[in-house]
Amino acid sequence: MNRKKICWLAAVVAYATTAVAQIEKVNPVIGTDGMGHTFPGACVPFGMIQLSPDTDTIPHNVDGVYQPDVYAYCAGYQYHDSTIVGFSHTHMSGTGHSDLGDILLMPTTGALKLNPGTKDYPDAGYRSRFSHETEKATPGYYEVKLDDYDVKVQLTTTPRVGIHKYTYPKGTDGRVILDLNHGIYNYDGKTLWANIRVENDTLLTGYRITNGWARTNYIYFAISFSQPIKNYGYQDFQKIKYNGWWRKFPVNHNFPEMGGRKLVSYFEFDTASQPELVIKVALSASSTEGALKNLQAEAASQGFEQLAVKASEQWKHQLSSIEVEGTPDQEAMFYTSYYHTMINPSIYMDVDGKYRGLDQNIHQASGFQNYTIFSLWDTYRAEHPLLMLMKPDEARDMVMSMIRHQQQSVHGLLPVWSHMANDNWCMSGYHATSVLADAISKGADIDVDEALKAMVTTSNVDYFDGIGDYIRLGYVPLEVSGTAASTTLEYAYDDWAIYWTALKAGNNEVAEKYRERALNYRRIFDETLGFARPRYRDGTFKKDFDVLQTYGEGFIEGNSWNFSFHVPHDVNGLIKLMGGEKEFLRKLDELFTMHLPEKYYEENEDITKDCLIGGYVHGNEPSHHIPYLYAWTSQPWKTQYWVREIMNKMYKNHIRGLGGNDDCGQMSAWYIFTAMGFYPVCPGTDQYVLGAPYLPSVRLSFENGKCFEIKAPGVSDKKRYVKSVRLNGKPYSKMYITHQDLLNGGVLEFEMSDTPNKQRGIRKSDKPYSMTDEN
Amino acid sequence: MNRKKICWLAAVVAYATTAVAQIEKVNPVIGTDGMGHTFPGACVPFGMIQLSPDTDTIPHNVDGVYQPDVYAYCAGYQYHDSTIVGFSHTHMSGTGHSDLGDILLMPTTGALKLNPGTKDYPDAGYRSRFSHETEKATPGYYEVKLDDYDVKVQLTTTPRVGIHKYTYPKGTDGRVILDLNHGIYNYDGKTLWANIRVENDTLLTGYRITNGWARTNYIYFAISFSQPIKNYGYQDFQKIKYNGWWRKFPVNHNFPEMGGRKLVSYFEFDTASQPELVIKVALSASSTEGALKNLQAEAASQGFEQLAVKASEQWKHQLSSIEVEGTPDQEAMFYTSYYHTMINPSIYMDVDGKYRGLDQNIHQASGFQNYTIFSLWDTYRAEHPLLMLMKPDEARDMVMSMIRHQQQSVHGLLPVWSHMANDNWCMSGYHATSVLADAISKGADIDVDEALKAMVTTSNVDYFDGIGDYIRLGYVPLEVSGTAASTTLEYAYDDWAIYWTALKAGNNEVAEKYRERALNYRRIFDETLGFARPRYRDGTFKKDFDVLQTYGEGFIEGNSWNFSFHVPHDVNGLIKLMGGEKEFLRKLDELFTMHLPEKYYEENEDITKDCLIGGYVHGNEPSHHIPYLYAWTSQPWKTQYWVREIMNKMYKNHIRGLGGNDDCGQMSAWYIFTAMGFYPVCPGTDQYVLGAPYLPSVRLSFENGKCFEIKAPGVSDKKRYVKSVRLNGKPYSKMYITHQDLLNGGVLEFEMSDTPNKQRGIRKSDKPYSMTDEN
Repeated sequence: MNRKKICWLAAVVAYATTAVAQIEKVNPVIGTDGMGHTFPGACVPFGMIQLSPDTDTIPHNVDGVYQPDVYAYCAGYQYHDSTIVGFSHTHMSGTGHSDLGDILLMPTTGALKLNPGTKDYPDAGYRSRFSHETEKATPGYYEVKLDDYDVKVQLTTTPRVGIHKYTYPKGTDGRVILDLNHGIYNYDGKTLWANIRVENDTLLTGYRITNGWARTNYIYFAISFSQPIKNYGYQDFQKIKYNGWWRKFPVNHNFPEMGGRKLVSYFEFDTASQPELVIKVALSASSTEGALKNLQAEAASQGFEQLAVKASEQWKHQLSSIEVEGTPDQEAMFYTSYYHTMINPSIYMDVDGKYRGLDQNIHQASGFQNYTIFSLWDTYRAEHPLLMLMKPDEARDMVMSMIRHQQQSVHGLLPVWSHMANDNWCMSGYHATSVLADAISKGADIDVDEALKAMVTTSNVDYFDGIGDYIRLGYVPLEVSGTAASTTLEYAYDDWAIYWTALKAGNNEVAEKYRERALNYRRIFDETLGFARPRYRDGTFKKDFDVLQTYGEGFIEGNSWNFSFHVPHDVNGLIKLMGGEKEFLRKLDELFTMHLPEKYYEENEDITKDCLIGGYVHGNEPSHHIPYLYAWTSQPWKTQYWVREIMNKMYKNHIRGLGGNDDCGQMSAWYIFTAMGFYPVCPGTDQYVLGAPYLPSVRLSFENGKCFEIKAPGVSDKKRYVKSVRLNGKPYSKMYITHQDLLNGGVLEFEMSDTPNKQRGIRKSDKPYSMTDEN
Repeated sequence: MNRKKICWLAAVVAYATTAVAQIEKVNPVIGTDGMGHTFPGACVPFGMIQLSPDTDTIPHNVDGVYQPDVYAYCAGYQYHDSTIVGFSHTHMSGTGHSDLGDILLMPTTGALKLNPGTKDYPDAGYRSRFSHETEKATPGYYEVKLDDYDVKVQLTTTPRVGIHKYTYPKGTDGRVILDLNHGIYNYDGKTLWANIRVENDTLLTGYRITNGWARTNYIYFAISFSQPIKNYGYQDFQKIKYNGWWRKFPVNHNFPEMGGRKLVSYFEFDTASQPELVIKVALSASSTEGALKNLQAEAASQGFEQLAVKASEQWKHQLSSIEVEGTPDQEAMFYTSYYHTMINPSIYMDVDGKYRGLDQNIHQASGFQNYTIFSLWDTYRAEHPLLMLMKPDEARDMVMSMIRHQQQSVHGLLPVWSHMANDNWCMSGYHATSVLADAISKGADIDVDEALKAMVTTSNVDYFDGIGDYIRLGYVPLEVSGTAASTTLEYAYDDWAIYWTALKAGNNEVAEKYRERALNYRRIFDETLGFARPRYRDGTFKKDFDVLQTYGEGFIEGNSWNFSFHVPHDVNGLIKLMGGEKEFLRKLDELFTMHLPEKYYEENEDITKDCLIGGYVHGNEPSHHIPYLYAWTSQPWKTQYWVREIMNKMYKNHIRGLGGNDDCGQMSAWYIFTAMGFYPVCPGTDQYVLGAPYLPSVRLSFENGKCFEIKAPGVSDKKRYVKSVRLNGKPYSKMYITHQDLLNGGVLEFEMSDTPNKQRGIRKSDKPYSMTDEN
């Protein structure tokens, strides 16, 4: 059963010699300031729990209205903040919309405060000042000292349990605030209901239901304390109508059943006698019974240190599947990126397989683990392909989760942007089709017919985002969608993914239909202009059109100049449409070299000067494949130039080191692939398009037991160009390498040079896949 | 397995000849005006569904604040109203606090209105005028015409499915409003969240969660329509924060996933072609999956008429277990009372046994049906004993439900006033101990040790309603409870029930402890005054004490004069305490004959002049056993006088025919017992204390197959006195009859007279149980 044969000994040796080094090179604070929207807290790979400090999520006064700063605090943390509100258990990694921050704990001492206070007046509430000097963040572990209370906080997790260890100052009784009103995206009234039961003096159960970005998010919990509770109570900051039972019970003090809409509770302990308090917080989406099972299975009878070691071991194991050589900063960036690709998607089921489905019923997972947090507009590009390569079991289960989602959807839609048994349908396209097609193409154990049915059904929900018009007209007209042009481009690629899957399923009828739909990108191309351009229902193009303007021109998070290149499945068709190779190259070159006037990004929260290279915006995903498009032209060496520029400029081992939202690992996965020297331009095909390695050595250990090495001795900013390539010792002329090539194991050697080899990769037979070449 | 042996032929004959007549004699509108708080709609015996018109529940302007008239509309209906808002699926029967009214449907035509309008301006909303002339109400069936829309409405139910048949006017397209914002006790914000999925063009699923009297009430539903939906939409009367997906979907029209906090939806049908629309609404407390199972199991593939006949048959079967002779009004009152004893408690689980427990987890019932709506302060007295006698299987399962409730309670408390997996702890005592003791005493299949554990745990929850002080001091001091004196009396009786159960369990240690506690009634007796009187913690009695004042004197829903008689387990002890029999009789006599000045009830919503006999208040339960206390004295004939007075004055075949809230069948059960000539003064013992029959003939058919007849030829207001009694033909001198006497089958013959037989029942050996006589 052990599939690790060839690579086994090597892996053992590598692990023994370098694994500790790998985990130590991860720097979780990369991207925690500014736009990266990552968090520094503790989690295990793909765990349900992301236990991390929230430095602020409280509404701010904006034009007289208190509103949460929802964009900056997507992950609850900004490095430049000087106070910590508390430690909550669910965080999205690198997203551009905020939510979660569920079940916040905060240790305090002294006077009881049940409100969080504010940034400007921290003493008004229970929050505390802190210094980054006391902060330690490694995969699976986080530590900080809370200066206002002199409490040392240590955090670790299992997949479903967050573990806190608080060390209170000597001789002082400690308190824990459990704030069920706290949250990220925490507008007034987000919490619909919260409930706590004090089951005994060391165990709580409870839940809360929120109406946030996830329309209805049910989080159940079980919380155990290592010391008995001495005293407890709560305040509900919103009046409850019926409170007749207040006459029967001392409900505010030591009353074991607390409920309300704005419920903040506290628990006091005799830490004067025993300063260390360990708290285990198990979550479940199904029930408190499920949370108790999770607590029992994953964290009972193990101490904080033991669990922290386990969390660390899991990361060591996962991170050890890639070894690289580079400068310390490059290695930190690489392993941190790899780390960031394994946070979301996240497990979303109990240890016994029960999970909340999209229909809000509790289902029993059979034959797969259920996952959630699918930021698919971002992650179909490189995050899911990377997981398909390095973590095929998890990637396959993610696809199963998407298929079940589709089956539970009243619309019959695959996930678009889904989390916590809800879809918020953020961004555009139905890119789950890409992930399904890619998984099937790469041999995942998926029922192809079931998958194809889910894909076809999704693409025919005629009331969703212009699909009806798209089917009738061949494009989404500008009347029905403000992002009509980009959506049309995205649908066309997603339809190609269905076409591709239908071919695998031997379903010619569907294949033929979707082959047609995959060519719809042509319908919104203005050949006179040479760019994609939105059309009205009557066929006329939008007037007064600006190819450099991102918003208001029929595109989303990318202007026409960038987005017009979004035909990953038919680059040769696109080249023709753009007026031939010369014009195509001119547009590509100009994209990277133009001066983009400030007016095109000054009011845009997603684009700053720092994330621009010419007019190329790396912080937003639609451009991610563009530098690789040179591979289809006579000048593939230009890819080699530009990817290194992007790597150098957009990724830094620094708190502001990400040039945009990490987007659930997509930015990081781009980094991993590009560092290796190739990129999945068209997920669904088995091809990775060659660029140039960023690092001199990358060694992949696959789950099948094989190893694949990428070597580029002497590679540097200067020696960035590929002179020649050898695969397993033989000269290799193609502009791509296949999934199977990698899985077979072997060595891909790049001879690097400080001048481009302009002859390599220009033969037609060496070019990557393009749909219209099939005939 | 058929236990019906002896009585079987008789029952068949009786059923054939009189059963139809029985059901036709039920008059569901008794008590629907004023204080009865009954509802006229359709249900089946102990069903989860009570489908009934709500005539008003909308907040009214009270001192500038809009508040629901929560007391008058406990059952959603007041007969004097002239409009119907719609038809909702859950109603409590006869309670004194309001809640439920879940899942309201209303057929309309013409202009779309999504708000209910008001009593005064019905045209402003979707409600309709109606006339009682078009109303028909029989057990399991309700019919009315909605004048504003000319729509005929017919309603029936299964246990878990409400079935509506709407006949729209010829040539008019019909609409159904589904108002998930509507409710009883519907203060602003009661609904925490509501959701609807349009699964296909004839099926909806959904749920709502409310925070009402039940703190968190989860109701899931599945609704099928006999015709396809043509068109639908909704309005959420409260803004939702995140609505980014509004850009993706036409969410207000034909969008199959509707959610919100104040959600009112509509569905339109082609009733111009087919005027009849049948709607089946299945409920579940566990999930929409559960609701669908309930729909499938109980109502699929059966038409309205078929289901209406089934509902009627169930009532015929249940009602046929008692046959009486009397005047038409007496028979209507009797059968309606019997009907009212079989609405609450109600089934609270899915057909597959899944139910929501008090811990809000979904449990699987094993070996019992789970029930809810336990108004125990009321129903322990006669309702549960009546069910124990006539419906022992249901009564036993209710006890099982209470034990499971206790096991799921974080407090370890048996239910006090519980409904929908919540306890509101309304009123006082822990009277479930009485119901458990009674069931065990009468041979129900209950694990005695498990029951005893639940009872003992309950009675030791020291933070509940003064129990801690009660344990320490022997009484609840007035400092900790405004009802300290009555609560002490109630605890003492409940403790007797534990003592009694411990004896059955052979647990002498517990028995001895609770024998002591059962005598605690003595501790708050002021022997100088001759009445119960609240004491402070230091032992002193309350000053300025008024034995006639109901509120503010340490009692609840009864003044000291009434409540002092609440020692049902030790009447002889009470007589001694009150100063001997002479004084005891004086107080009893005076209770029924005094003039109670108006000041003692003018500001009391529970007491009106109509429900008084002297100072005796029948509308409130604490007095229900008092007329039977003469049985322990030398003047038992006075019971015979007063019970007939109460029957004549407090129960009328009329919309205002109930002298107080029916209280989930307690008022009705009192009527049934008293009509038969005996009453369970001290549930837990096997004795029913004799009064005098109200009707000349009552015939009971038990589940064991035996019949028991009570005959009182010639009984009348004049011939109200018992001259002699014969049991199975033999002279019978005792003042009680036992449960086993009844279950054995036979005949109890009363010879009635217009003068009292002052010699009957005065021998000590013929007296009913009294605790302190045991030694």
